[in-house]
Amino acid sequence: MGKESFVEQIADIEKDFPQWYTDVVLKTKLVDYGPVKGTMVIRPYGYAIWENIQAELDARFKATGHKNAYFPLLIPIGYFTKEAEHVEGFAPEVAVVTHAGGEELAEPLAIRPTSETIIGSMYSKWLQSYRDLPIKINQWCNVMRWEKTTRPFLRTSEFLWQEGHTAHATEEEARGETMQMLGVYKEFAENVLAIPVICGKKTEKEKFAGAVATYGMEAMMKDGKSLQAGTSHYLGQNFAKAFDIKYLDKDGTQKYAYTSSWGVSTRLIGALIMAHGDSRGLVLPPKVAPVQVVIVPIAAKKGGVVEMCEQIKQKLEEMSIRVEFDNTDASPGWKFNEWEMKGVPLRIEIGPRDIENGKAMIFRRDTLQKESYDLSTLAQTVQELLSTVQNDMLEAARVRRDGRIVYAEDLDGILKGVESGNFVKAGWCGCRECEDKVKEKTAATARVYAEGETAEKCAVCGKKAEHVVIFARAY
Amino acid sequence: MGKESFVEQIADIEKDFPQWYTDVVLKTKLVDYGPVKGTMVIRPYGYAIWENIQAELDARFKATGHKNAYFPLLIPIGYFTKEAEHVEGFAPEVAVVTHAGGEELAEPLAIRPTSETIIGSMYSKWLQSYRDLPIKINQWCNVMRWEKTTRPFLRTSEFLWQEGHTAHATEEEARGETMQMLGVYKEFAENVLAIPVICGKKTEKEKFAGAVATYGMEAMMKDGKSLQAGTSHYLGQNFAKAFDIKYLDKDGTQKYAYTSSWGVSTRLIGALIMAHGDSRGLVLPPKVAPVQVVIVPIAAKKGGVVEMCEQIKQKLEEMSIRVEFDNTDASPGWKFNEWEMKGVPLRIEIGPRDIENGKAMIFRRDTLQKESYDLSTLAQTVQELLSTVQNDMLEAARVRRDGRIVYAEDLDGILKGVESGNFVKAGWCGCRECEDKVKEKTAATARVYAEGETAEKCAVCGKKAEHVVIFARAY
Repeated sequence: MGKESFVEQIADIEKDFPQWYTDVVLKTKLVDYGPVKGTMVIRPYGYAIWENIQAELDARFKATGHKNAYFPLLIPIGYFTKEAEHVEGFAPEVAVVTHAGGEELAEPLAIRPTSETIIGSMYSKWLQSYRDLPIKINQWCNVMRWEKTTRPFLRTSEFLWQEGHTAHATEEEARGETMQMLGVYKEFAENVLAIPVICGKKTEKEKFAGAVATYGMEAMMKDGKSLQAGTSHYLGQNFAKAFDIKYLDKDGTQKYAYTSSWGVSTRLIGALIMAHGDSRGLVLPPKVAPVQVVIVPIAAKKGGVVEMCEQIKQKLEEMSIRVEFDNTDASPGWKFNEWEMKGVPLRIEIGPRDIENGKAMIFRRDTLQKESYDLSTLAQTVQELLSTVQNDMLEAARVRRDGRIVYAEDLDGILKGVESGNFVKAGWCGCRECEDKVKEKTAATARVYAEGETAEKCAVCGKKAEHVVIFARAY
Repeated sequence: MGKESFVEQIADIEKDFPQWYTDVVLKTKLVDYGPVKGTMVIRPYGYAIWENIQAELDARFKATGHKNAYFPLLIPIGYFTKEAEHVEGFAPEVAVVTHAGGEELAEPLAIRPTSETIIGSMYSKWLQSYRDLPIKINQWCNVMRWEKTTRPFLRTSEFLWQEGHTAHATEEEARGETMQMLGVYKEFAENVLAIPVICGKKTEKEKFAGAVATYGMEAMMKDGKSLQAGTSHYLGQNFAKAFDIKYLDKDGTQKYAYTSSWGVSTRLIGALIMAHGDSRGLVLPPKVAPVQVVIVPIAAKKGGVVEMCEQIKQKLEEMSIRVEFDNTDASPGWKFNEWEMKGVPLRIEIGPRDIENGKAMIFRRDTLQKESYDLSTLAQTVQELLSTVQNDMLEAARVRRDGRIVYAEDLDGILKGVESGNFVKAGWCGCRECEDKVKEKTAATARVYAEGETAEKCAVCGKKAEHVVIFARAY
């Protein structure tokens, strides 16, 4: 297989989206399969995206008063049974350590699928007085959920994430925290990942095991399916009661705290790929792109070309722009293909004639447009273009998404809507039977309530609608 | 127990160093015990130190051409048996997952104690041609080694670390990498942690299981014991052969790569505590201190005091100094004790009379000295003092350490030396028997070779000395 032909190795995004996804994540070296079924290796190009995501989110968590900590990976199995819904939700997915140090353990240990239980047990120990509240801690770590069907980034037995866990004196404050962090996620998704999201409450069926209420943010992928990109849970006093998280209040009585938890994971990388990618491969928003600008010399052996590229590179680096100068032996065409597949937002092309004319070409990955710019102000132009690309990508994604939200009056309408790759808004009576029926007939699930919208009738049973729900097929 | 008396809760550092350590780590809220024996919870104050360590090291790794990635937590048990020494070294400490997703696994999985094996298996897949070399990857992650006796930060079943793994075309290059990273660790330990370290090669007995050569950096704690603060391993072709890490060279033949690995862990926090701490608690070097400056108001209710404190806080924050303004109800004396125990490098005290005189007091945690400075240039003074404290702490630690390195001619001399809390340099013939005898009689182990030094005779058997070895009791 010749080097020039590698782009054809990516499946057609229109014809086989799942295969396109697999091809893109492997061929751009974002990820590889680990030796144990269902595990992934996040390669340097993929991990650099995660580092950028982490830096952006971590700054937001700290700005809202959270501190990072680290809790143990292994949780006594017994902890899970303390919260009835929680154990039911997570027990089937848990990986269990039974032997260590050459001996069988007295009590088996679970590898954390999420840390409400172990963190709850520590908060119980740390929390004494109302003066200790609120507790606002976040943790960056790996978690494990044994899944039958896995796909890199989207669903793997081990993944990386952050989980925030907070405890408060009042319900109002804990609910406020839950909504604040959902808001942080939304602002981040839109302004950093350039992915417009719909936030809202989840149905009882779809909520987190052990929560009073779960709020999710849903993002539309290019195939019209939804990806749950983050969740924020109001846990009420469920975990406080299960783990005895209580404090001596000002009035001299012992009270249970109200807790919240919220998380996003390496799934976000999957969201980036499927929200923005195209037939040539990745399209990365500048704020998280590991390489924001690639410089490709044309006729590099001609005098002055390499020097000019080096100069530009240095100038961009001084402006803290992440830049690569591709001075390998490959042909310009091959380099164009490679860096386009890797989703680099801007490509600068410089040849002898450009230098003569005091110009350089800049190619935009998001619009596939190429334009000539003055060399003398190139660095400034690049900086402005990066900002333009970032904004335009969000806007383009928003237009795409908004054009694919439809309303349905009945089950058939929901089916047709999701089959054509839409999010479908429909009235719902609120009963589990109707929700199950939608799933059974259309393979779509209730993503979130469409906040503030009302409908007359349930699209399934025709009874009075309690909510408008966004139905979609989902990852 | 009254608030004012808490300092007395720390054991006397001179009389009971181990208890002093335990008291300090728990009472300053660096860490807590996890529910599973041998595990720790790294609390926000401790984790903030780790974040500062990570940021400093990560920048150095990237500046030397390494990229971060993430490899799976779970390793098929069979991988360990591929490298004979490696399995012998790690098998007894491994925690094993036997069940997951409600079923027994066909092959048990080890939780990584270190990742040479799984990373080796991936490098084998990724490495094709000499053009792919060198591979220089680092990973920040958790690892697990089941230990019988544990202590927070120093030895716990789970800990956080970074592990660098590189593959090279030649022995020279791989050895060069091994030494370069040892040098990076040394520079970091001295300039960031203010801990002078002795670097050198380890004996065969003390080397990493599977390495050709291990180089360690050893730091002296206040009790005269040594703490291995980091290691860098030249692995030769041992793992390359075990995992088939080979490439097609320019000459058209298949060749095995040469690999290295190197790591430091949350142990470094233990090193910080025991290298610098004193009877009042922690003494943290400014570069890693979560709080570099605390402002304590004197007679805060008097007009203008709080405002002045706020002003100073803001000015210091603008200079990216990590500052806290302690405006709680506690007495100044209580606050002094608390922040001293927490090791904050500088304390600014401001009262109404100081403001009248245009002055403020600054207390240095490292020297326990207090001096009055002009308010008008206070921010500048603080910045300079932070730098002075950083340098002085290294110098003081170096003087302490250098005063406790002695030479011994025989086993009795080694015993006396280590019993008085020294590092002891002694000639060694190179045989395992003599090394074992030192341990048996003195409880000291060979830390590293004293590079460049020679001796006539082995201090144990009297035969010709091949090396000068630094013996010490160690954590």
